[in-house]
Amino acid sequence: MRGPTRCSGSLIQIGVRAMRIGKRAARGDVQRALRLGIALLSVLLCTLVHAEELASWRDGPVKQAIIDFVSAVTTPGSAQFIEPPQRIAVFDNDGTLWAEQPAYFQLLFAFDRIKALAPSHPQWKTQQPYAAVLNNDMQALADSGEQGLLKILAATHAGMTTAEFRQIVLDWLGSARHPRFGRPYTELVYQPMRELLEYLRDRGFKTFIVSGGGVEFMRPFSESAYGIVPERVIGSRVATRFTMRGDKPVLIREPIVEFVDDGPGKPVAIDHFIGRPPVFAFGNSDGDLPMLQWTAATPGPHFVALLHHTDGDREWAYDRRSRVGRLDQALDQAVVRGWVVVDMKRDWRRVFAFEGAAQR
Amino acid sequence: MRGPTRCSGSLIQIGVRAMRIGKRAARGDVQRALRLGIALLSVLLCTLVHAEELASWRDGPVKQAIIDFVSAVTTPGSAQFIEPPQRIAVFDNDGTLWAEQPAYFQLLFAFDRIKALAPSHPQWKTQQPYAAVLNNDMQALADSGEQGLLKILAATHAGMTTAEFRQIVLDWLGSARHPRFGRPYTELVYQPMRELLEYLRDRGFKTFIVSGGGVEFMRPFSESAYGIVPERVIGSRVATRFTMRGDKPVLIREPIVEFVDDGPGKPVAIDHFIGRPPVFAFGNSDGDLPMLQWTAATPGPHFVALLHHTDGDREWAYDRRSRVGRLDQALDQAVVRGWVVVDMKRDWRRVFAFEGAAQR
Repeated sequence: MRGPTRCSGSLIQIGVRAMRIGKRAARGDVQRALRLGIALLSVLLCTLVHAEELASWRDGPVKQAIIDFVSAVTTPGSAQFIEPPQRIAVFDNDGTLWAEQPAYFQLLFAFDRIKALAPSHPQWKTQQPYAAVLNNDMQALADSGEQGLLKILAATHAGMTTAEFRQIVLDWLGSARHPRFGRPYTELVYQPMRELLEYLRDRGFKTFIVSGGGVEFMRPFSESAYGIVPERVIGSRVATRFTMRGDKPVLIREPIVEFVDDGPGKPVAIDHFIGRPPVFAFGNSDGDLPMLQWTAATPGPHFVALLHHTDGDREWAYDRRSRVGRLDQALDQAVVRGWVVVDMKRDWRRVFAFEGAAQR
Repeated sequence: MRGPTRCSGSLIQIGVRAMRIGKRAARGDVQRALRLGIALLSVLLCTLVHAEELASWRDGPVKQAIIDFVSAVTTPGSAQFIEPPQRIAVFDNDGTLWAEQPAYFQLLFAFDRIKALAPSHPQWKTQQPYAAVLNNDMQALADSGEQGLLKILAATHAGMTTAEFRQIVLDWLGSARHPRFGRPYTELVYQPMRELLEYLRDRGFKTFIVSGGGVEFMRPFSESAYGIVPERVIGSRVATRFTMRGDKPVLIREPIVEFVDDGPGKPVAIDHFIGRPPVFAFGNSDGDLPMLQWTAATPGPHFVALLHHTDGDREWAYDRRSRVGRLDQALDQAVVRGWVVVDMKRDWRRVFAFEGAAQR
């Protein structure tokens, strides 16, 4: 939906038609007056469609703050106008664009991969941290510490080409189901955020993901789930190595974490990948705080927002004491600095697209 | 100039007008026939303008190969059609988009910075590698080896914020002059390549720089020189560190080379930054070979080209034995694999925009 653009287009067409009708009125061309009526109706319709933008956001101060900011920076002649090339919008992924409970989905992917690969590694039955995953023993896994997690990563995210990994991710997304909702993980995308991304792009913003998740885990679904093309997905990554397999060049994924796009890594990555400061940023946890601070320091108008998970019925309620997506310091900062805080329970009419399907 | 798009647009308009005139012919509306004449004239004009695209390329097999490829992959219904999101075009910078003699311009920038900073470092007069730079003693500099170059880099490219470095680069670009041509370095951009970038973008391609040069050295001028926005500039980089200066977040450039975007680093960077394979690649040296191989391995149609510096009069003539921008293995591969080789002397009507100014 590109409401206003189309609406303005229609208005211009109507203007042109009205002038033509004016010219030809002397000829008594009545039929053309009918066309003007149809055109006016189409503008009414267009306005209704426009009103349906951000449809999953409840009317209130948060929705209004979004609309006011975007309107101010995209209206030519406005004192706050921002040129389109500078309309950079950055979004965290886990807990901001899709859910992150009961654990980051990429971690659940890694566990599923360990189980799928176990038959070819019989020693894993008694070897940690693999045995912990195979027995769903999260305490034993936690005891294996960072070294344990790196072993899981090496076994599941490295040792194949980038093209092979992409296919593994796509196969998993096609078959795996979320433990609580019984649906593909890509259905756990937040419908209001999808609408917000579209709303921004329709107004000339470039929308980027800046996530602690693996960049090559997100890219296979970012285009279909969010309309975000691969080159606008920034994330953590393992090292890759260029080599020739016979006559064919390939990139091999290495068991080396080359970059962690979390916390202070986010402004670093934004600068490396985008090369100019964002004017719009959205996160949900303390790991997003430096990205939000970085955006808040952008000279000129900017918009900084946090999603607060407050809805245990439709999604989850968690913040300061959560192990996943802890929101503590960033929440304090948001209050002090006047950033927008989205209260999921209060501000979202619906959380997931499938809710609507059930309600209708 | 977006020739064909505008021309097709005009043709459609003419079709619509012709139909209207046909309908009204019964009314004897002669004036409208005049309008059709004007419209036809505008298409003729449009065709002439279109012919001016790639104006600095001489007619011949190379120019034709570019036009044929682009036409095949952008014509809807063509068997070779490529969807716009996948029209990824990658260009080396030094020696491909602008000159690289007598040395990479970024190296000349570093030398100028050493000279500018020398008054505050009196010990440099006798300390290598700085003394070598201050005395223009290139042999002594070469003797200082890679460690010497890293010291030069640390002294000139690190220890400041990213914003400060950007301003230093802009100031230098505004004041420094090329030793042979006596012009700002940004005038050493190749006019035919600028036209090619525009030609591709007008047809829905996304043009990226993938250069061994420093990403934060290129971004300050890439938009004005090439029409390439910062987020489409990929290059080598030093590490940056996020920190708060009082209440203000900054990124500090560290004296650590974090990534070298040359040779096998180019496909690695393309995959990290763009996340899909290019369909169009242009380089000029052996450092570009892996990028060209990577592009040549893209399934479906693709275009791979090398610029061969053959024009000692207007620019420079060098290839297999050059210390800067050596072109040896990649030239052999181009012959074996049938890649397009641009012969600067033969294929370019003009090299730099200022030549035209002198000739006219």
